[in-house]
Amino acid sequence: MKTVVIGLGLIGGSIAIDARKAGLATRIVGVDNNPGYADRALALGLVDEIADLDDALVDAGLMITAIPVNAIKTVVLRILDRISETTVVVDTGSTKAMICKAIENHPRRGQFVAAHPLAGTENSGPDAAFSGLFAQKTNIICEKGRSSEHALKIAARLFTALDMRTIFMESVEHDKHVAYVSHLSHVSAFLLGQTVLDIEKDEKNIFNLAGSGFASTVRLAKSSPDMWAPIFEQNAEYLSQALLEYIMHLQKFQYHLMKRDVKELHRIMTNANHIRTVLEGMDMKHKPNQLVENKS
Amino acid sequence: MKTVVIGLGLIGGSIAIDARKAGLATRIVGVDNNPGYADRALALGLVDEIADLDDALVDAGLMITAIPVNAIKTVVLRILDRISETTVVVDTGSTKAMICKAIENHPRRGQFVAAHPLAGTENSGPDAAFSGLFAQKTNIICEKGRSSEHALKIAARLFTALDMRTIFMESVEHDKHVAYVSHLSHVSAFLLGQTVLDIEKDEKNIFNLAGSGFASTVRLAKSSPDMWAPIFEQNAEYLSQALLEYIMHLQKFQYHLMKRDVKELHRIMTNANHIRTVLEGMDMKHKPNQLVENKS
Repeated sequence: MKTVVIGLGLIGGSIAIDARKAGLATRIVGVDNNPGYADRALALGLVDEIADLDDALVDAGLMITAIPVNAIKTVVLRILDRISETTVVVDTGSTKAMICKAIENHPRRGQFVAAHPLAGTENSGPDAAFSGLFAQKTNIICEKGRSSEHALKIAARLFTALDMRTIFMESVEHDKHVAYVSHLSHVSAFLLGQTVLDIEKDEKNIFNLAGSGFASTVRLAKSSPDMWAPIFEQNAEYLSQALLEYIMHLQKFQYHLMKRDVKELHRIMTNANHIRTVLEGMDMKHKPNQLVENKS
Repeated sequence: MKTVVIGLGLIGGSIAIDARKAGLATRIVGVDNNPGYADRALALGLVDEIADLDDALVDAGLMITAIPVNAIKTVVLRILDRISETTVVVDTGSTKAMICKAIENHPRRGQFVAAHPLAGTENSGPDAAFSGLFAQKTNIICEKGRSSEHALKIAARLFTALDMRTIFMESVEHDKHVAYVSHLSHVSAFLLGQTVLDIEKDEKNIFNLAGSGFASTVRLAKSSPDMWAPIFEQNAEYLSQALLEYIMHLQKFQYHLMKRDVKELHRIMTNANHIRTVLEGMDMKHKPNQLVENKS
């Protein structure tokens, strides 16, 4: 099947690799408005050729958008206005309410699948792409009822090729949930990094004392601002609420800290320890036998 | 050399394993006021025998304290009041100003080394101990000038056995620095975990959307409250200052988020991206060739 990948960064590039490996994509056309990314994706063999969007979409069986979320609406509308009735379009962006709303009455809405494969690293660009990025991770499909059976079937083949488990939810619910379990983690890491960078101006060599715990907590602060600024903008309402709740917890903690109320600090940490069960649940979820069950 | 390990958790247990492996500790006596930990450490072979503190310290060449920081003062004073003049005592706690202050005029001060080997995991207890926990990581020795040459020599042998690189600083400087690069990361993770646990009460299955980024950022929320509550208490001044700065950054971010000032959000994240250089420097630091150089 002729497959078009729009956006040749970490996500688009990694999808291209595994879609080809699984035999789903027999010919891959890449589209990117950054000529450096396009050249590099071609040189790395992620795609077979580079084309403009309007040329690329002719006779495509599957088109995948993996672009900054502020570009999705324009690109997807342009695609839907031009494709034939057999082409399926799968978006992979990290926010889903805006795009679902923007195209809800489009005559080609059924050919579109609003997905969010939950995977990534703090690196970006075609050189960051690798096989297995998505393996045994979770994919979300939003507004399933608005996609045609054919579109869902093609999307299922794609996410099976990526070795992902798919779950379904409404787009607004999706955006709210990712505000807490993804976007807030990123903001938390960016500003933890900034706080320590600030103090380092006065306290030289402070990073001599940084260990693996710091590295783990701050890892996401390496993420791409080009990618994240538009995501935060689109999810500003929910993220702002999540931030408020987080700040409130931090302030309460500081209050008890200043009062030297060790018992209360202990209680707060003991409650937070329940996250251990959740993280172990996440590990469980990714065990192969579980995966098979959930994948059906 | 007869070695006494006081506190048979992750840190004490892991020190015992590698001190024995390196041939430094020929006989290891364990001390723990938790009988469960003591029995388990003996069963695991971390120590050769269990004794009371007063019995254990007789003829000891090296005594290592690896106990909650609120217990250090009492235990170290008791040890210093009773040991012979050849015994060396190394403390490994995560705060250093309090203990250095408490013993500054003790006649045995020279036999004491105030260390902080920067290593750990989110797990605790003797079963969490393993060989290599400290390998190629950084150790801090505070108030070096107050320790005797003999004590520093024995401590150097210990930290070489653990394959650590040692740097030196004053105890107050140490406590300030760890507030930012270690304690703040822990508070940040505990309360990020709590924020998401809270929302999960209303939004079921929210953890379906949690990926490896969330797991990494929140990992330290699994840490032991018994260990961390006293550390936070002892370092309350510096940690509170660090928390204030962190909260201020979060609030500014939220302000720009609510204004949809994407340019400013982008600028903040781009600045925070500099943490990448720091983290890569940390990796560099741990490369074997670097280690040899720094270890001299």
